[in-house]
Amino acid sequence: MLKDLRKEALFGNRMLPSSGLVKLTFGNVSVIDRIKRVVAIKPSGVNFDNLNLNSIVLTDLDGNILEGDKKPSSDLPTHLELYKNFPKISSIIHTHSEYATSFAQARKPLDCFGTTHADHFHGTIPITEDLSREEIEKNYELNTGKAITRTFREKRLNYLEIPACLVASHGPFIWGEFVKETLENAIVLEEIAKMNYKILLINPTAEGISEYLLDKHFFRKHGKTAYYGQKK
Amino acid sequence: MLKDLRKEALFGNRMLPSSGLVKLTFGNVSVIDRIKRVVAIKPSGVNFDNLNLNSIVLTDLDGNILEGDKKPSSDLPTHLELYKNFPKISSIIHTHSEYATSFAQARKPLDCFGTTHADHFHGTIPITEDLSREEIEKNYELNTGKAITRTFREKRLNYLEIPACLVASHGPFIWGEFVKETLENAIVLEEIAKMNYKILLINPTAEGISEYLLDKHFFRKHGKTAYYGQKK
Amino acid sequence: MLKDLRKEALFGNRMLPSSGLVKLTFGNVSVIDRIKRVVAIKPSGVNFDNLNLNSIVLTDLDGNILEGDKKPSSDLPTHLELYKNFPKISSIIHTHSEYATSFAQARKPLDCFGTTHADHFHGTIPITEDLSREEIEKNYELNTGKAITRTFREKRLNYLEIPACLVASHGPFIWGEFVKETLENAIVLEEIAKMNYKILLINPTAEGISEYLLDKHFFRKHGKTAYYGQKK
Amino acid sequence: MLKDLRKEALFGNRMLPSSGLVKLTFGNVSVIDRIKRVVAIKPSGVNFDNLNLNSIVLTDLDGNILEGDKKPSSDLPTHLELYKNFPKISSIIHTHSEYATSFAQARKPLDCFGTTHADHFHGTIPITEDLSREEIEKNYELNTGKAITRTFREKRLNYLEIPACLVASHGPFIWGEFVKETLENAIVLEEIAKMNYKILLINPTAEGISEYLLDKHFFRKHGKTAYYGQKK
Repeated sequence: MLKDLRKEALFGNRMLPSSGLVKLTFGNVSVIDRIKRVVAIKPSGVNFDNLNLNSIVLTDLDGNILEGDKKPSSDLPTHLELYKNFPKISSIIHTHSEYATSFAQARKPLDCFGTTHADHFHGTIPITEDLSREEIEKNYELNTGKAITRTFREKRLNYLEIPACLVASHGPFIWGEFVKETLENAIVLEEIAKMNYKILLINPTAEGISEYLLDKHFFRKHGKTAYYGQKK
Repeated sequence: MLKDLRKEALFGNRMLPSSGLVKLTFGNVSVIDRIKRVVAIKPSGVNFDNLNLNSIVLTDLDGNILEGDKKPSSDLPTHLELYKNFPKISSIIHTHSEYATSFAQARKPLDCFGTTHADHFHGTIPITEDLSREEIEKNYELNTGKAITRTFREKRLNYLEIPACLVASHGPFIWGEFVKETLENAIVLEEIAKMNYKILLINPTAEGISEYLLDKHFFRKHGKTAYYGQKK
Repeated sequence: MLKDLRKEALFGNRMLPSSGLVKLTFGNVSVIDRIKRVVAIKPSGVNFDNLNLNSIVLTDLDGNILEGDKKPSSDLPTHLELYKNFPKISSIIHTHSEYATSFAQARKPLDCFGTTHADHFHGTIPITEDLSREEIEKNYELNTGKAITRTFREKRLNYLEIPACLVASHGPFIWGEFVKETLENAIVLEEIAKMNYKILLINPTAEGISEYLLDKHFFRKHGKTAYYGQKK
Repeated sequence: MLKDLRKEALFGNRMLPSSGLVKLTFGNVSVIDRIKRVVAIKPSGVNFDNLNLNSIVLTDLDGNILEGDKKPSSDLPTHLELYKNFPKISSIIHTHSEYATSFAQARKPLDCFGTTHADHFHGTIPITEDLSREEIEKNYELNTGKAITRTFREKRLNYLEIPACLVASHGPFIWGEFVKETLENAIVLEEIAKMNYKILLINPTAEGISEYLLDKHFFRKHGKTAYYGQKK
């Protein structure tokens, strides 16, 4: 089982560069086994090319290393905070993908301007508040996770319908129920950010889509009334 | 014959990812046999990599499935409405290609700023009105087709001279007399959108080209007085 | 000899798609043998993939076909007008390359903002005036050539120091003393246009470089006082 | 030893095109042996494809050629000036990479808008003042180096914490303690410039990040208190 968990974490991390979402070592993927309460995550600062099953680090939900010679990603406390607060997710991706990160660092959320967005995310992808000096200087990575979960709580957002958040001045965190779905969410997030960028330059006063068009497209693909795709 | 129709539909759908016009499952191609009144279309939500002759769905003009185990693309009713109203076309493409979709979602038409556009499209590529709440909630995909044909009727546009339309908040539909020509129209539409984007940023007050330059370039390549290309 | 001329024309045309300067059939290259007064040019509307030695068309300076089964590029009269007025050039390229064409269609010249430009072009790449209705409706392609040479004459520009011109609402024509140099000029023109685009968006009030920096970089690489590169 | 120095210079120069940082011959890499006081640099105007161990030029710190048949890069005096003033660096890269060069030629520094920047550079990447007419006309390349070192001196910047400078109207120079690190700095500089460009277009009034977030990210990866990456 733990070998499978490592495999999934390795697969997810290896997909990041080939999907065009990361350069150098800017990014990481983790997966969780909810029953055994074990998290598998990329080691810190290791090139994606050099990853193998043994370099994946296994920790418990408090960040204690269970297996592995390497230090886990320094973003581990952010991942753990998300796993604790979003109980139905089993994979998390952090990237510095070009367009989504540019919105995060421009401190702007990703509003929903069209059906590409509405097909995948049920509304605006939110952005966190700035972290305070205290939150940055002490337990920074934990506080990054808290900023994300606070954003979802305060805005009353459904983390399964909007499986991503921009961290102000930093970049996106994306999650999902499976690692493949999380990768797809990360790819779609970047495509949406790429289009939003163009839409805002083509029409700086562009307005978001209507709630009924948003609902139509989102629920055409998700939930009980979905009619897009093949029966499963 | 039906095998040939499937082949053409398969060819068209397979060309979408390699032409750079689609990511993931965002797009579909259909073809029609006008004599047998049969439409071949991509199945809904299937990855382009996984398509084969058997996965292509055959329907009649009312959307009844004639052959195929899979559900047809959820955009089928839009395609059928276009085939009914534009009797000389035999192929339709829908994509979420980056630039054309950004104009559609920014709710801006593609004006003609130069000869690249005029060589292929005889004037502005129009954009539909927003669909009403009623049109979205009931028979959405059919009403999308109606919005396109209404746009061409109200603006008195020639659907063979302007073989594409942007659907507001959504993306482009492109058509043609043959599947290869339709693919070329889709590729050129994206190139034009890419240039229009840059033109508008370089010169926000840029004006469209004169009617005589538009006519010169369009009719240099199309119709009886054409002198571009080789004799056929 | 004529085989060599065809070979050079074929080489130049084949390089266009691999250099990223053209899509579909948007572009053409010609070369001239100044002694025999023969021009070799791409046939009209033929895909670059399908070109071979026999498809290259040979004409005299009045556009009469000397050899070849195919019609020459419809832009032939523009090329001929340039060869007649710019006696030291022996190759011409026309493309619809993305950025240079966007400037042409936005009706803006390419000002010199930095040393990348100054290393290759001795000042602003000019843009023609709009052609009149009469110039478009009759002998359009010849008048396009005349618009280019008129621009250089009126602005007293040196066609060897600025071997390119943007045609308003259309795209760039580039020339040179050899086909390889002309290709390099076309590639650099596109790179400069790409940078100018970004420069104008980063700093809309950016000013061109000083005349002494322009001269320093241009004459560091060109003419008798050049000290860049290896001795020949 | 000198063979090793040549090898490193060759490696660095060969990496430039594959890293996407240079087109044609726009760029050069040098390395220095601090003990022997020998610099190895790209020859002037030679295509990167044609470089081999013998084409690398060896000079002393006054620019006298020690070994090599070719003329060194015309930017050699800039490199030498940097080696003299920045005693802890052992490699320098000059490129005309698309985005960093566009900022240089738009005469704008690269402010720090987010953690991607803060992870690698401890603050704004500065831009030099314009060189005067005299500085351009005489000893231009030497004066380019002096403009860089003057910028760092006057702004009291630490050249190891901010290992890059934009030269106004020209492009970036990047340095480091090793050639691989210098290449990474050049790649990250271009990524940062690419994001800054987007950030400024998404939010023209975007403000730089706080000093404590800058310090947090920079010192998470650099210096004695670093906790990012694996123990060495």
